Amino acid sequence: MRDDAPDACAAPTLADIHDAASRLRGRAVRTPLLESDLLNDAAGRRVLVKAESLQRTGSFKFRGAWSKLTSLDAATRARGVVAISSGNHAQGVALAARLLGVRAVIVMPADAPAAKREGARALGAELALYDRAGGEDRDALAASLCAREGMALAHPFDDPAVIAGQGTVGLEIAEQAREAGVARAEVLVCCGGGGLTSGVALALEGAAPGLRVRPVEPEGFDDVARSLRAGAPQRNARSAGSVCDAILTPAPGRLTLPVMARLCGPGIAVSDDAALSAMAQAFARLRLALEPGGAVALAAALTRADLAEGGDPADPVMVVASGGNVDPSVFSAALALV
Amino acid sequence: MRDDAPDACAAPTLADIHDAASRLRGRAVRTPLLESDLLNDAAGRRVLVKAESLQRTGSFKFRGAWSKLTSLDAATRARGVVAISSGNHAQGVALAARLLGVRAVIVMPADAPAAKREGARALGAELALYDRAGGEDRDALAASLCAREGMALAHPFDDPAVIAGQGTVGLEIAEQAREAGVARAEVLVCCGGGGLTSGVALALEGAAPGLRVRPVEPEGFDDVARSLRAGAPQRNARSAGSVCDAILTPAPGRLTLPVMARLCGPGIAVSDDAALSAMAQAFARLRLALEPGGAVALAAALTRADLAEGGDPADPVMVVASGGNVDPSVFSAALALV
Repeated sequence: MRDDAPDACAAPTLADIHDAASRLRGRAVRTPLLESDLLNDAAGRRVLVKAESLQRTGSFKFRGAWSKLTSLDAATRARGVVAISSGNHAQGVALAARLLGVRAVIVMPADAPAAKREGARALGAELALYDRAGGEDRDALAASLCAREGMALAHPFDDPAVIAGQGTVGLEIAEQAREAGVARAEVLVCCGGGGLTSGVALALEGAAPGLRVRPVEPEGFDDVARSLRAGAPQRNARSAGSVCDAILTPAPGRLTLPVMARLCGPGIAVSDDAALSAMAQAFARLRLALEPGGAVALAAALTRADLAEGGDPADPVMVVASGGNVDPSVFSAALALV
Repeated sequence: MRDDAPDACAAPTLADIHDAASRLRGRAVRTPLLESDLLNDAAGRRVLVKAESLQRTGSFKFRGAWSKLTSLDAATRARGVVAISSGNHAQGVALAARLLGVRAVIVMPADAPAAKREGARALGAELALYDRAGGEDRDALAASLCAREGMALAHPFDDPAVIAGQGTVGLEIAEQAREAGVARAEVLVCCGGGGLTSGVALALEGAAPGLRVRPVEPEGFDDVARSLRAGAPQRNARSAGSVCDAILTPAPGRLTLPVMARLCGPGIAVSDDAALSAMAQAFARLRLALEPGGAVALAAALTRADLAEGGDPADPVMVVASGGNVDPSVFSAALALV
């Protein structure tokens, strides 16, 4: 670990996020903030979409992976990295490792979409598959791999360097909101373990305090929303069974939940059908290919009239479209809903 | 017409393109230049994709439409605008007119995709449909509308203000190529009447002379490629019958062909299947929704090994992905090819 690396047991600071942004410069895409005149008409307000589906490897995860790997000292990094992932983190870590010339082993659920398994493999990663629905302990599997091979663990969300990398999405949102003339808005973020959500919230706290983050999850997998309501960590009853495979984490992170509790508005849960329908809208109105888990925030923007909470329902809403790695059959099924 | 407006009978200058760019600032999206590590692996070189499908209304056409309407004097503009369009220009003109609060009438082929007809209508334009396959004279129809209503004509390509607007894509490519470290490349551009192709070529001539444009057309509709080879304007034998509906123009423009003859490399023709397959690659590797006519340049980049013409086959190639307005059924059919 570098001397100036973030404390491994604390969330990153705004300075850590800026530091990650400088390591990512020239490596990550500054993804565009898009809007559609017809989508705005339909929603009755501006809906500004941060298209992280256009990031390298097709999701925001490359940011956290690169931030993590470049925060390791050279000797540690050279032994390679183990990542736990439902697919997008896998591809982010695989690409970051490839660009740095080190080995990556991915602990991945066997039911991850083919597009994601093949994406990680094509980028040179080795896969270690586990049984998600059967409750196999992915953390134990990853820990034993790390111990056996002397490799570093790149957790998908509960790691300050990873959160700092995802937080760079928030720094860009702050800039792009200013460019778009938006000073005050709810920022809806697709939420699994909370790495992206907490990172964006931390960035906006410092860089654009008029923008407030709200986590969006699939119905039945709204552990973060329930944890925020309860004031204590809650787990999901099921570990699989939504089309939103990218964001089906069992429980919020140890580092991420306190950040979300301090900075985020109430969580929102949307149905699988709403996510699929939002994919169809993103295709027709924004020409973006989104995956279901990457479309839940847009789904909330399009279906929930109650976002403003006492604010003006005509206030703009911002949405992070977090990923676009989806099998063609699922995508075509979503388009058939138009 | 403003005093400093381009000569209506001559192609625009680089200064005209810079002027259009300043009128478009804050109105058009600066679309990203994207690349995929896996797509590069498959192509054996860098393939950099200028994603104009992410432009407002889903294609580059908004640029030319806004440039044209803002080049009219206030009294002319107030009477509204007539546009001839296979669909994308229609939406660009419709939005520009809506933003400026003036009337737009679109002369559109009756066989244009539903997505495009409805897009223009939803943006407030009136439609005047004609029979493309039957050879009905769209120019005469538009001229009679203009005469009857005192409206201005916004030609889809053969107008200096329109070409200047499309040329702003080239100014951005020049900047983004520098940012990406690319000094020398072939720039493949999806080509119908040549407004985008000639505009980009004019911009690059001044702003990035190491980048050379090559027009890409559908097989059977390669009037520009044949005109460049013959040294004189050639017409297409058919007026319909390719899935690449956006770029099926009968012949090159009077203003655009001389520019292309002076500045562009040889034209390239690709099959409908290659265009559909490129759409599938753009979906899987770049998470972009492209229409067939907007994917022909990417198709050429992925299927033609002979682009370099004596240069290094490993030289980077740049591609303009010009539009993304496609009916879901066509898109799903393309995905089934993966």
